[in-house]
Amino acid sequence: MAGMRLYDNGWAPSPRRVRLYLAEKGHGLSEAIERVPVDLQHGGNLAAAYLAVNPRGLVPALVLADGRVIDDSIAICRYVEALHPDPPLFGSDPFAIAMVETWLRRIEAEGYAAAVYALRNGHPAFAGRALPGVLAGEGAAPPQLPALVERAGVLWAGFVASLDAHLAEREWIADRHYSMADIAALVAVDFAHRARLAVPESCGHLRRWHAAATARPSSGA
Amino acid sequence: MAGMRLYDNGWAPSPRRVRLYLAEKGHGLSEAIERVPVDLQHGGNLAAAYLAVNPRGLVPALVLADGRVIDDSIAICRYVEALHPDPPLFGSDPFAIAMVETWLRRIEAEGYAAAVYALRNGHPAFAGRALPGVLAGEGAAPPQLPALVERAGVLWAGFVASLDAHLAEREWIADRHYSMADIAALVAVDFAHRARLAVPESCGHLRRWHAAATARPSSGA
Repeated sequence: MAGMRLYDNGWAPSPRRVRLYLAEKGHGLSEAIERVPVDLQHGGNLAAAYLAVNPRGLVPALVLADGRVIDDSIAICRYVEALHPDPPLFGSDPFAIAMVETWLRRIEAEGYAAAVYALRNGHPAFAGRALPGVLAGEGAAPPQLPALVERAGVLWAGFVASLDAHLAEREWIADRHYSMADIAALVAVDFAHRARLAVPESCGHLRRWHAAATARPSSGA
Repeated sequence: MAGMRLYDNGWAPSPRRVRLYLAEKGHGLSEAIERVPVDLQHGGNLAAAYLAVNPRGLVPALVLADGRVIDDSIAICRYVEALHPDPPLFGSDPFAIAMVETWLRRIEAEGYAAAVYALRNGHPAFAGRALPGVLAGEGAAPPQLPALVERAGVLWAGFVASLDAHLAEREWIADRHYSMADIAALVAVDFAHRARLAVPESCGHLRRWHAAATARPSSGA
């Protein structure tokens, strides 16, 4: 992984997926890839220097030694997975591969989407940034939609209930061991917490899982 | 693939991804998997018989010979891909693997999401079904949000512009040959058309790609 640069941000959820993945994967990857911080809070992602790396103005972005760029968090992880298949974090057999993908898509469309809806449409700091990256700056900024905060609550309630039920019979979400689905869910749950979407006391299985995921050394990466 | 059943619907976009994938994959898979139609227009997806298969009330769902269920379109395709790696439709090398994933996620979050936003929040037939499957039926049905139709237009315009620019230098979206990213984009573009989100005349590269994708025998599967 020599010569690779990862454009990163300690606050944002998407680069956190990549950091946790690299920490779980091992092989010294976390140390082998250079990190370049991007200051989202002060618009560093929309500055010309960063738009030259990623015209979408989003983090993370991985720049390969030959200059090619991968600008999606899960795609970065799948790239590293193709180079370093072991330990398998995207599923250790065909059914587990399907379960990882099922949950990655569900976490993204329901859990993570709920958190993004709530935060970008409900938090004053996101006024004018209801859509991320350059989408927020093209023409008139899209307005915050308070009704989406309410819808976020519906999505979130359905998401945590279904994940809690799923975890009643399983230690981890999609495979016999910790996988990318667990990483994405941990990032979504922690991000949702900042958007005031909590895991209710009634979701005991999900809370047990969250404690176990948080206890792994990777969670602080 | 003997003994597998695919719960399908000819109108809905998600099962179409699976049918196109199976047709492109070959190996006689399209014929080897039994198809079971689900009548979404008349609530067949929320009937007890189908909820016993997929409690989420969504199509597609693939039931394996041992009774296990995969209820996400891309996850079904990744399962088949793990069993039948050739020809590779999720990327033929590590960078192509990353590009397929990048575009699958972008198509889902921007192109397909725009179409879903517009249709479920703007079309009278979706009153009371602004969220899909069982989410629409739990408690009070979430209201249609006209502001999301407007936001869908912003998302869609950004999506088609970026995909058009991307295709200026490429025959297909993510790999040297046709891939799952092309399948997902074709399904999204055709579905968006029904939500009155069109590919503008100015997007010549995207229109050329769309004609080529539509001309493939798989597109009618």
